[in-house]
Amino acid sequence: MTRSSNLEAEPLFISACYCKPTSRTPVWIMRQAGRYLPEYRKIRSQVDFLTLTKTPDLAAEVTLQPIRRFDLDAAILFSDIMTPVEGMGVGMEFNPGPIVSEPIRTASQIDALRVPDADENVPFVAETIKIIRQELPSTIPLIGFAGAPFTLFTYLVEGQGSKTFSQARSFLFSEPELSLRILEKLTDVMIQYLRTQAQAGAQALMIFDSWAGLLSVEDYRAFAYPSVCRIIKSLGHLDIPLIYFPNQGASLLGTVKDCGADVVGIDWRTSLSAAREVLGSEVAVQGNLDPMALFSSKKDLGSKIDNVLKQGGSGPGHIFNLGHGIDRMTDPDRVAFLVERVRERSQAYML
Amino acid sequence: MTRSSNLEAEPLFISACYCKPTSRTPVWIMRQAGRYLPEYRKIRSQVDFLTLTKTPDLAAEVTLQPIRRFDLDAAILFSDIMTPVEGMGVGMEFNPGPIVSEPIRTASQIDALRVPDADENVPFVAETIKIIRQELPSTIPLIGFAGAPFTLFTYLVEGQGSKTFSQARSFLFSEPELSLRILEKLTDVMIQYLRTQAQAGAQALMIFDSWAGLLSVEDYRAFAYPSVCRIIKSLGHLDIPLIYFPNQGASLLGTVKDCGADVVGIDWRTSLSAAREVLGSEVAVQGNLDPMALFSSKKDLGSKIDNVLKQGGSGPGHIFNLGHGIDRMTDPDRVAFLVERVRERSQAYML
Repeated sequence: MTRSSNLEAEPLFISACYCKPTSRTPVWIMRQAGRYLPEYRKIRSQVDFLTLTKTPDLAAEVTLQPIRRFDLDAAILFSDIMTPVEGMGVGMEFNPGPIVSEPIRTASQIDALRVPDADENVPFVAETIKIIRQELPSTIPLIGFAGAPFTLFTYLVEGQGSKTFSQARSFLFSEPELSLRILEKLTDVMIQYLRTQAQAGAQALMIFDSWAGLLSVEDYRAFAYPSVCRIIKSLGHLDIPLIYFPNQGASLLGTVKDCGADVVGIDWRTSLSAAREVLGSEVAVQGNLDPMALFSSKKDLGSKIDNVLKQGGSGPGHIFNLGHGIDRMTDPDRVAFLVERVRERSQAYML
Repeated sequence: MTRSSNLEAEPLFISACYCKPTSRTPVWIMRQAGRYLPEYRKIRSQVDFLTLTKTPDLAAEVTLQPIRRFDLDAAILFSDIMTPVEGMGVGMEFNPGPIVSEPIRTASQIDALRVPDADENVPFVAETIKIIRQELPSTIPLIGFAGAPFTLFTYLVEGQGSKTFSQARSFLFSEPELSLRILEKLTDVMIQYLRTQAQAGAQALMIFDSWAGLLSVEDYRAFAYPSVCRIIKSLGHLDIPLIYFPNQGASLLGTVKDCGADVVGIDWRTSLSAAREVLGSEVAVQGNLDPMALFSSKKDLGSKIDNVLKQGGSGPGHIFNLGHGIDRMTDPDRVAFLVERVRERSQAYML
């Protein structure tokens, strides 16, 4: 019996990251600690977002909230991809997304960007991770994370979230050398930041490339991919699973398959079977239910979950997740339904 | 000689739509009539957007502006995808994108949506087309267009443009039957609207599915694709090229190839060679330079144009275009450079 119970001494989530056979498909949810939970909103009614990310007791509490409520197979640090960027000397606020006080668009601004030591930059993150690890059961690993350099670049240059990121994209093309200098510095900072998280106790690391899908394949290869590869290579010695999520990256997977990540996150536009075809059997996939499917009737939601399990189950190495962060209007009961469904049904779909 | 000059009695653009060999690659630019042109901004300083779309002399003038300035191979009607929707009884304004006064989210609102006769709904559109056709040289065809029903649906339900269209997407899943009723009515209106444009003199028709990329393949097949197929089938007897643009549709092309369109528009995320592999040799491709490439140095822009020509030239049936509408900050000189480059270089890349 290949799916023997002794394999389970390693947490299910970790085994799946390494494409080992598991007794069922592990499940966690992007942005599982967040506004759809009343217990999260209660804390947020007392502190602002930035304070929450920087206060270890509160950030740990918020990280643990969804673990107490649902049978999830992984926790993810509550933080923001912009958190380590502030220490580079970039002023910002959140309303609700990040707003950079002075968008980075000149050589002198780039020169002034600092590459701070992570311990000094974000001491509260290591502290938060230590608290979480004390509270989490040993079967539930903690995922640390960072933004991918290109995604952080889009916010730094654009100054805020945007439908099109026209400023960031026109800067990329009009100033390719300056752009690469920003990307280099961001890469240096993220390597340190992720390493610090692992040293503090994170048992897997995820790189969110939320805006990778803004780029053509050629420009992705020129501007976004090299920094992701450098991060992954620099963290290889940590010997923990590394997850890369190139959001809306349908056309990028042929490139992404060689980045060295153990797991590739797939948004809901690409079917897991199509992703597996491109990525091959050595890379695990994570995803990819459309978050909005949680607004369907339970009957429809059930079919949609089964469909993801079916496509993901075509080999070992599937971690069930949404294809993007959960929407803040989601009913927590639907999340409970989802987690239970994956736990009950996944084995039937495994090859 | 297969590329004989007598083929050119038919406008280059039309031949390319039908995958016939042409002496060079035709070129036009999405949103070529628009804010990046000083002559357009001059007119807009005198009238608001809605008035401009509804005043035949002015809409015709704006349509012709880029034709006078650049050696383009096609003109496209100046209008907005929401123009025919207003006559369904939907109040809206533009600021600058469409804002629907009362988003459609109830059965009674859907029942109240009218399916007006196109002549009565948008008489100014046929009038505009007639004026343009009188002015345009016979070598330059006029493209009419409409929004795809799913894309119009997202605006009607969301109420305005959005990064995520959460309201529209959650409505789609929570109310699939009501959603299909909205889509049916929109399809009926668009069929009439496009037919009216052809009867008035439009020599090709394009369907813009700007938000097709919000959907997984399964949901695209359930909600967006059937209406596109019905439109194309209903217009087949017109015997003019039909172009379908599923924006950000990398994962949808395997479905799209059977929709019956003569030409499929490809955004810049998917390479034309990858698109051709999925679409086969019977369907022409249109695209797909990243609009932001126009902010590159001329040297870099030249290489990027050549790369699109190379990938598009792997068979007959390529219409050069951007992969999305031109950005309003674009320098018109870069557009002149682009058009000249395509005219000069394209033959070298044709198989």
